[in-house]
Amino acid sequence: MDEKIYRESLELHRRLRGKIEIRPKISVRTRRDLSRVYTPGVAQVCREIQEDRDRAYIYTIKSNTVAIVTDGSAVLGLGNIGGYAAIPVMEGKALLFRQFAGVDAFPICFDGYHTDFVEAVKNIAPVFGGICLEDIAAPKCFEVEEALQGIGIPVMHDDQHGTAVVVLAALMNACRATGRQMEDLTIAISGAGAAGFAIFRLLRCLGYDQRLCSSVRDILMCDRKGIIHRQRNDLLKNKYKYIIAHETNRKNRTGTLSDAMEGADVFIGVSAPSLVTPDMVRSMTEEPIVLALANPVPEIMPEEAKRGGAGVIATGRSDYPNQVNNVLAFPGIFRGALDACAREISSEMKMAAAHALAARVKRPTRGRILPSVLDRRVARAVADAVSAAAVSCGCARDSHETL
Amino acid sequence: MDEKIYRESLELHRRLRGKIEIRPKISVRTRRDLSRVYTPGVAQVCREIQEDRDRAYIYTIKSNTVAIVTDGSAVLGLGNIGGYAAIPVMEGKALLFRQFAGVDAFPICFDGYHTDFVEAVKNIAPVFGGICLEDIAAPKCFEVEEALQGIGIPVMHDDQHGTAVVVLAALMNACRATGRQMEDLTIAISGAGAAGFAIFRLLRCLGYDQRLCSSVRDILMCDRKGIIHRQRNDLLKNKYKYIIAHETNRKNRTGTLSDAMEGADVFIGVSAPSLVTPDMVRSMTEEPIVLALANPVPEIMPEEAKRGGAGVIATGRSDYPNQVNNVLAFPGIFRGALDACAREISSEMKMAAAHALAARVKRPTRGRILPSVLDRRVARAVADAVSAAAVSCGCARDSHETL
Repeated sequence: MDEKIYRESLELHRRLRGKIEIRPKISVRTRRDLSRVYTPGVAQVCREIQEDRDRAYIYTIKSNTVAIVTDGSAVLGLGNIGGYAAIPVMEGKALLFRQFAGVDAFPICFDGYHTDFVEAVKNIAPVFGGICLEDIAAPKCFEVEEALQGIGIPVMHDDQHGTAVVVLAALMNACRATGRQMEDLTIAISGAGAAGFAIFRLLRCLGYDQRLCSSVRDILMCDRKGIIHRQRNDLLKNKYKYIIAHETNRKNRTGTLSDAMEGADVFIGVSAPSLVTPDMVRSMTEEPIVLALANPVPEIMPEEAKRGGAGVIATGRSDYPNQVNNVLAFPGIFRGALDACAREISSEMKMAAAHALAARVKRPTRGRILPSVLDRRVARAVADAVSAAAVSCGCARDSHETL
Repeated sequence: MDEKIYRESLELHRRLRGKIEIRPKISVRTRRDLSRVYTPGVAQVCREIQEDRDRAYIYTIKSNTVAIVTDGSAVLGLGNIGGYAAIPVMEGKALLFRQFAGVDAFPICFDGYHTDFVEAVKNIAPVFGGICLEDIAAPKCFEVEEALQGIGIPVMHDDQHGTAVVVLAALMNACRATGRQMEDLTIAISGAGAAGFAIFRLLRCLGYDQRLCSSVRDILMCDRKGIIHRQRNDLLKNKYKYIIAHETNRKNRTGTLSDAMEGADVFIGVSAPSLVTPDMVRSMTEEPIVLALANPVPEIMPEEAKRGGAGVIATGRSDYPNQVNNVLAFPGIFRGALDACAREISSEMKMAAAHALAARVKRPTRGRILPSVLDRRVARAVADAVSAAAVSCGCARDSHETL
């Protein structure tokens, strides 16, 4: 099966020679056209922007353009393949950006892991209204994203926050489908990388959301060494695990993933294939929620999870129900941020995205907690919520009113 | 007149909100489409490129994509306006790239003069098949371009070499129109900046071209201080002026621009408005060639040059005959370089471009030494010549044969 898709994909790429193209919005036929799009007329546009940088949102591609930035250090399941080999993935993302949300996205692939990422992204910022970081290894992805906040345009690492938004939406609807309340949940998360950390952070933000009275009851996060707890001696080497240890795991439990899952209502896997057995699912509460998102082989296959008694099952795969895929989030989030000429993408905006995404399924059932990845209305709904949140949390620029 | 164009240009830019857009070459309608353009199929394409970087030319946008890179330090007549204010010009150039030569060009505008330009350009190189440097102040433009040779893709500063190619083509045809031989010419150049230096270098290359037996007789270059000669005490401060002093001005003449023009066959102005009088033209040889390219106000207006007895007159303006404009060169040069998957743009390739451009005018006359800037066939002719030259001078990659 995969062999066939691989062959078809290679052929398609060879035929297209790149999946995106850059086109003029206007045709130059006469000298008068030339004098308006280029010299001498364009000089006046330059002067306007020189007076006030924010006018770039009015007169240039900035208001609709996002850079998809990677160093290729953590691509799909391929690992650190570098900037060149990452190009096809970034082009694919650019294609989805445009098709689902009308965003003009361009791939920027840094060659080599040793690029000064922060400087390099700042350098290219003027043309872009947003930066979507992609496929960057942890913990570098955290450091880079953090260092790039406050540069005046939104910078979001999709593998973190795109995933977290979709997972949160899936979780909300899984609760509705199984009659659970978010604040009662105990959640076991397998994987403390980019996605795991962002899911934890977004779950922690729940409390700030007025539509929910509090966060979840408890989160237990596991990495390769088992449950992250406050006595672990590797915490000082990794700031992010230190934060996790101190902000999850109320009873400071120790043990393996198996121990973490015991009695939990929810399993979220953003780790590696086949770590979970039906028995481990059986040790959870009745009819638990199992989001096994390792791709293409999940932590536990849906049939097995079912055997273990899972009530709701989601994976990253397109050949099972409840597909969790970032494409449900990133086009709409950036669309909304661009619509607001946003300075950043705040927790409020991500939370609004999760709510809007969840609301796209009117009556969630165990077999349908998320809309289809091909549903074109999703991005618009997410964008409207994100853009409204940007305005209400003060992240929008005034320019967005004149657009 | 200009006021009207300025107003129209502003309105146009406000309406379009950017002059270019990024579009998918293929539409994603089904899960199967998604699996071929994105995961899981795309993984195989990544693996292929990981094995051999040059396969990016086969499977990605690299083979047709150019970055237009600037720091906005020398834009049009506006000076150092920075990366933001330069965006509209770069977009205009991107539009022309696509419309005249089918090249996908994307603007990269660095914010601030202190960007480490060389590092910044190297960082973004993977996605691009060529780098077109734009509107960078001298002497930085020379240093940056020099430092970026050998990075594996062509890097060309258009204000230097695009201009030089068009000027050389204009000069060739002006000679044909007035019955002169290149090797007999004495040329006075006003302006030793980006364009002036590149014109001098390309004229020096003439000798290497088999279609011409030798270079021109002599070149006299002037900057603000007059003729550049070997006793000037500012040569050690500026490597480029040192080179000029030692490779032009055979008799080591001193004096003003006026002195330089006396007895010269050709005047080339790439400097500032209104530096030349009819009397200065009258002091040249009979019916001299006057290329007065300062824009929008040339070194001498065509009417005045005529009064001084000029035989052939060209300017950068669209409201007079013989318009010298880079758009006659850069789209075709990069098209040809991309067609050859070239590693660099060599002197041979630039020379080939000049010859092809000149050849687009079958029978040059005093009133027509260059094709129209709107002539769509120019870029193709230039591209074919450049690409053939790339192959014959060893600058082409093998990949171009599989494209």
